[in-house]
Amino acid sequence: MKESSILSYRPQPGEYAWTFGGVPPVRTVPPGTVLELFTEDAFGGRVRGVSDLVTKVCQFPFVNPQTGPFYVDGARPGDTLAVHFVSIEPARDWAASTTIPLFGALTSTHLTATLQEPLEEVVWIYEVDRAGRTVRYRSRYGDHTTELPLDPMHGTVGVAPASLEVRSSLVPDAHGGNMDTPEMRAGTTCFLGVNVDGALFSLGDGHCRQGDGESCGVAVEAAMNTVVIIDVLKGLSTPWPRLETDEYVMSTGSARPLEDAFRIAQADLVDWLGRDYGLHPLDAYQLFTQAGEAPVANVCDPNYTFVCKLAKRYLPGQAPYRDAHARLRGQARDYARAR
Amino acid sequence: MKESSILSYRPQPGEYAWTFGGVPPVRTVPPGTVLELFTEDAFGGRVRGVSDLVTKVCQFPFVNPQTGPFYVDGARPGDTLAVHFVSIEPARDWAASTTIPLFGALTSTHLTATLQEPLEEVVWIYEVDRAGRTVRYRSRYGDHTTELPLDPMHGTVGVAPASLEVRSSLVPDAHGGNMDTPEMRAGTTCFLGVNVDGALFSLGDGHCRQGDGESCGVAVEAAMNTVVIIDVLKGLSTPWPRLETDEYVMSTGSARPLEDAFRIAQADLVDWLGRDYGLHPLDAYQLFTQAGEAPVANVCDPNYTFVCKLAKRYLPGQAPYRDAHARLRGQARDYARAR
Amino acid sequence: MKESSILSYRPQPGEYAWTFGGVPPVRTVPPGTVLELFTEDAFGGRVRGVSDLVTKVCQFPFVNPQTGPFYVDGARPGDTLAVHFVSIEPARDWAASTTIPLFGALTSTHLTATLQEPLEEVVWIYEVDRAGRTVRYRSRYGDHTTELPLDPMHGTVGVAPASLEVRSSLVPDAHGGNMDTPEMRAGTTCFLGVNVDGALFSLGDGHCRQGDGESCGVAVEAAMNTVVIIDVLKGLSTPWPRLETDEYVMSTGSARPLEDAFRIAQADLVDWLGRDYGLHPLDAYQLFTQAGEAPVANVCDPNYTFVCKLAKRYLPGQAPYRDAHARLRGQARDYARAR
Amino acid sequence: MKESSILSYRPQPGEYAWTFGGVPPVRTVPPGTVLELFTEDAFGGRVRGVSDLVTKVCQFPFVNPQTGPFYVDGARPGDTLAVHFVSIEPARDWAASTTIPLFGALTSTHLTATLQEPLEEVVWIYEVDRAGRTVRYRSRYGDHTTELPLDPMHGTVGVAPASLEVRSSLVPDAHGGNMDTPEMRAGTTCFLGVNVDGALFSLGDGHCRQGDGESCGVAVEAAMNTVVIIDVLKGLSTPWPRLETDEYVMSTGSARPLEDAFRIAQADLVDWLGRDYGLHPLDAYQLFTQAGEAPVANVCDPNYTFVCKLAKRYLPGQAPYRDAHARLRGQARDYARAR
Repeated sequence: MKESSILSYRPQPGEYAWTFGGVPPVRTVPPGTVLELFTEDAFGGRVRGVSDLVTKVCQFPFVNPQTGPFYVDGARPGDTLAVHFVSIEPARDWAASTTIPLFGALTSTHLTATLQEPLEEVVWIYEVDRAGRTVRYRSRYGDHTTELPLDPMHGTVGVAPASLEVRSSLVPDAHGGNMDTPEMRAGTTCFLGVNVDGALFSLGDGHCRQGDGESCGVAVEAAMNTVVIIDVLKGLSTPWPRLETDEYVMSTGSARPLEDAFRIAQADLVDWLGRDYGLHPLDAYQLFTQAGEAPVANVCDPNYTFVCKLAKRYLPGQAPYRDAHARLRGQARDYARAR
Repeated sequence: MKESSILSYRPQPGEYAWTFGGVPPVRTVPPGTVLELFTEDAFGGRVRGVSDLVTKVCQFPFVNPQTGPFYVDGARPGDTLAVHFVSIEPARDWAASTTIPLFGALTSTHLTATLQEPLEEVVWIYEVDRAGRTVRYRSRYGDHTTELPLDPMHGTVGVAPASLEVRSSLVPDAHGGNMDTPEMRAGTTCFLGVNVDGALFSLGDGHCRQGDGESCGVAVEAAMNTVVIIDVLKGLSTPWPRLETDEYVMSTGSARPLEDAFRIAQADLVDWLGRDYGLHPLDAYQLFTQAGEAPVANVCDPNYTFVCKLAKRYLPGQAPYRDAHARLRGQARDYARAR
Repeated sequence: MKESSILSYRPQPGEYAWTFGGVPPVRTVPPGTVLELFTEDAFGGRVRGVSDLVTKVCQFPFVNPQTGPFYVDGARPGDTLAVHFVSIEPARDWAASTTIPLFGALTSTHLTATLQEPLEEVVWIYEVDRAGRTVRYRSRYGDHTTELPLDPMHGTVGVAPASLEVRSSLVPDAHGGNMDTPEMRAGTTCFLGVNVDGALFSLGDGHCRQGDGESCGVAVEAAMNTVVIIDVLKGLSTPWPRLETDEYVMSTGSARPLEDAFRIAQADLVDWLGRDYGLHPLDAYQLFTQAGEAPVANVCDPNYTFVCKLAKRYLPGQAPYRDAHARLRGQARDYARAR
Repeated sequence: MKESSILSYRPQPGEYAWTFGGVPPVRTVPPGTVLELFTEDAFGGRVRGVSDLVTKVCQFPFVNPQTGPFYVDGARPGDTLAVHFVSIEPARDWAASTTIPLFGALTSTHLTATLQEPLEEVVWIYEVDRAGRTVRYRSRYGDHTTELPLDPMHGTVGVAPASLEVRSSLVPDAHGGNMDTPEMRAGTTCFLGVNVDGALFSLGDGHCRQGDGESCGVAVEAAMNTVVIIDVLKGLSTPWPRLETDEYVMSTGSARPLEDAFRIAQADLVDWLGRDYGLHPLDAYQLFTQAGEAPVANVCDPNYTFVCKLAKRYLPGQAPYRDAHARLRGQARDYARAR
């Protein structure tokens, strides 16, 4: 691997992307580049107090701004883009959540249409204690407060889609996008199948934390300072976004109904365990049945997302994806040491 | 209304569109134009015999070619495009259907993923008797044959999507697209909400006929010679594709799971009955419950599609959409008379 | 076939059944019996005016009363019960419909739970013109009225379930039950798989008519005077309720999500076409794709129900189920002539 | 609370129950009773080697035998039954799993019907090391083996259903039943709404462990020696099964599609947090969105099951259900000490 270069990039107003695909790259970078990035929050930083209702301060479709896309030299359709998350840090000392009319799991929506009145639009502002590694929840209709652990992540990470499509940054699908899984945290490597030359990688939608399913549709939304290292794995395909940490291999699926997201994620993991660990599909199915974990990522977006994960300690010793995770992990340590 | 002009257009190889949005217009036309169009079949005319397997003769994503898009002068976001189908006639004396691995309602798919083997890939060729108005079904594993009525329609009709998106011609959604409803036949007016300047209308995927749900995923696919008249209704919005005939008003919904498609179509019809007929939502809901028809369009595409329709004879006398359907119907008669 | 006997039966208060299974038979009858029955409406006749709210006048689980069950001599598990509908006539000159809080397709429910307020509870009373064969719809929030054709049917028809279960009369499943399909009208023969000795057949939930999907959850509900002829087909199995008319064969499926109901109905029809018409599954799948009809029955009950039907004119000449439908049709004509 | 009595009960052959409801009680016990129970595995102990295929050694509907039901004195409809799990220990040194044709998440099923061939029927036998607290997975098509932690639980726990119903022990619903959640382990208190006099509690389907979703439909199935303490909470209702541990409150939902199970569980938790912790519904919704956990229990049974859980450390200090969990936890400690 060549010596790594470092690119720092903070989008100017007007430079954000609102889709995956359909946007010219903001920069071209070689594989191995360390990207030091700023990402805005899902509301473009406009929800700052409890009276900043999204329906007033934001204008669709200009929500969920993405930083990028980056054209990665040498990435071609059929390759895999590896994105290793070195660090994700809240850029401000506050963060926001809200209900949005006809959006979320416990309300009717534009897709699950009913004749009922929407839920009230309410904003919650969180104090972010970056030193103490907590965010403070404060109820709006009572006086309950509690500290929740800071666990920063990116809700939206992806590349340009296949099939000549361009997708809103609100949508998760096989190209990644708005998957909203807390597994997308520092220490994770995300593998994305490349669909177009240069891959056209972008990311955004930082969350200080979120629960399983991101139920009301909006996590603890925050601008982030994020460092990732990107790499290209030539000739290796990745049908759905996959994740790897020191301890787990994971596949994702994004679809409706929710059982289809579960099926995709798990069938993809079975495929992966076959290719990189030599397990027969039925043996992998059985092992997952007993030892698999399946954290639900979102039950609110245009597609719902499931993650299916298996601890590496239950698998044979092989390293998947040509040991890319371990290698990028090492590069991340070198980068951290050098700062 | 200004005097109508007539545009005849047959795409050259290389001129077909594979998406809604993301493609420059092939022609610009004023409202009121009569379009005489040729549309290729969903396989680009390549499935001509039982040994022409789609997985061999077609290359994804180059399936379901669309004729267009047409830029309609004066159409602006928030307006409605009206498309009246004057005639739809098979261009050849044969048509094709097939199973496609992991596509269709009675098989697992890329979204409803299982570990089972796909169904066998089998092609059925239909003889089209344009004079007798039938197509001939012939079984592949036995000797059963039967004549089915010719009932030509377009599976795919739409405009450029909202939210800066570009969607594959295989996808139905709020912009129209691959809805696969037999209601899209001669005599019908289709109303589409305009999302971008010029609307960017295109159509394709002619079917000699199809059953409810287009279950195996592939109808009696045929190239078509089709005449439509297009018009623009300024300042009238259309959230989901709506259809009107002399006898019915209809709304469509495209989503998963299938009940959500049903909900969307029906909630949209309730909205429409409120706006154009003055019915209270609960009264419209009740009337639909007792008198509504709901033919399922497709249960095979990336979104499933339902049509909800109500006979005009059960409604107050108002004409919806400024009487556009009756007006276009008259223009179609004039056009037919003049030929 | 033995000469038919006739049994007239009108349940006394306290004699109605509220479940399929779990109830002793009210009568034992031989195959071939003509049953002249009275069935109460789904609300036990208690919703008579617009101020009779179901939540006030009915007490769960005592809704949807069933007439029966009847023990049919000689019916054994693995056999099929054939039920031919000779006539279904409204017993009164009014009928009722209503919204019910958290019940119906365009509202959240106990299963599709949201935090929104329920829809308002509103009653519509219909005048039934038995001579003119219409019912009169009258809006509650405006002054729109219209005549709808009378098309009487039974929403609920079934036998005791398999697997030692007892199911509420509100539930449709493989045993039949609350399928709510308008196809269950006079002239239809319904085939039900026998799960327990005597089959334990019952029926209720008469509708003067309903639309596709019975969207608000409540049709034009009416007490009925109904005549059926029952028969037993020894050694013939029926996995899901099937229907036959002079023109159609039909299968039903009841499940969630709605696409699963569609899949069940259609896969069962494919099985049936294989057994009784000799069609290969892929040929039957193809024929249904082009010529099948799929009226959605209900999208409101604990399981949703689809009907998949194919016109006999597209099939080889065989008569299914040992020609039971034609035979019962003849017996019905004899019965009608003798009255 | 009265002094606790202890009842030891091991069913004789012929004494197992195959349904919830519809079965006379095996014993009557007062609230506060400690039950020392034996439960058979889901296959009645008949799958002992890799050639013991379920389709050969078991006969439907006689699968998933339940120990019980127990009539609990004083339990009346509207009350809550509390069941505290003191200990769950495998009764044998082996356990079994298997694929079953047309059952599981990654196969078509009788409900998600396709025309494909079923997956192969394959059995895996696990060695259970009760001292070492592990089970040993051994692949069938390769030579991979691995130790998985023993984490015993009951897949099936419930009471007689509401609405006069009787449900197969394979079904999870509002009465509990075959929920298949690993949260049903020692240390947990399960709250079940009482639907009939005496509640009629039973349990079975021990698992040495299972992964999220119990994907292939069959966990590491084992006979168990289990100790529970039962109690009755008068006048407190419980719409869906709820669980409590020292650290968490949890609600369950069982339905299809899977998002409806998620919605039910979460809406029920929001209700519970309102009743017992005084949180406004929107505040509870928000708190769950950021801090909730949602382990999916099963994606294979007739209804799918989700658990929604929130750590007590994020809640105000109140003890729910009149502090029943803490009280029963204390009683469990006394019982353990006395042995």
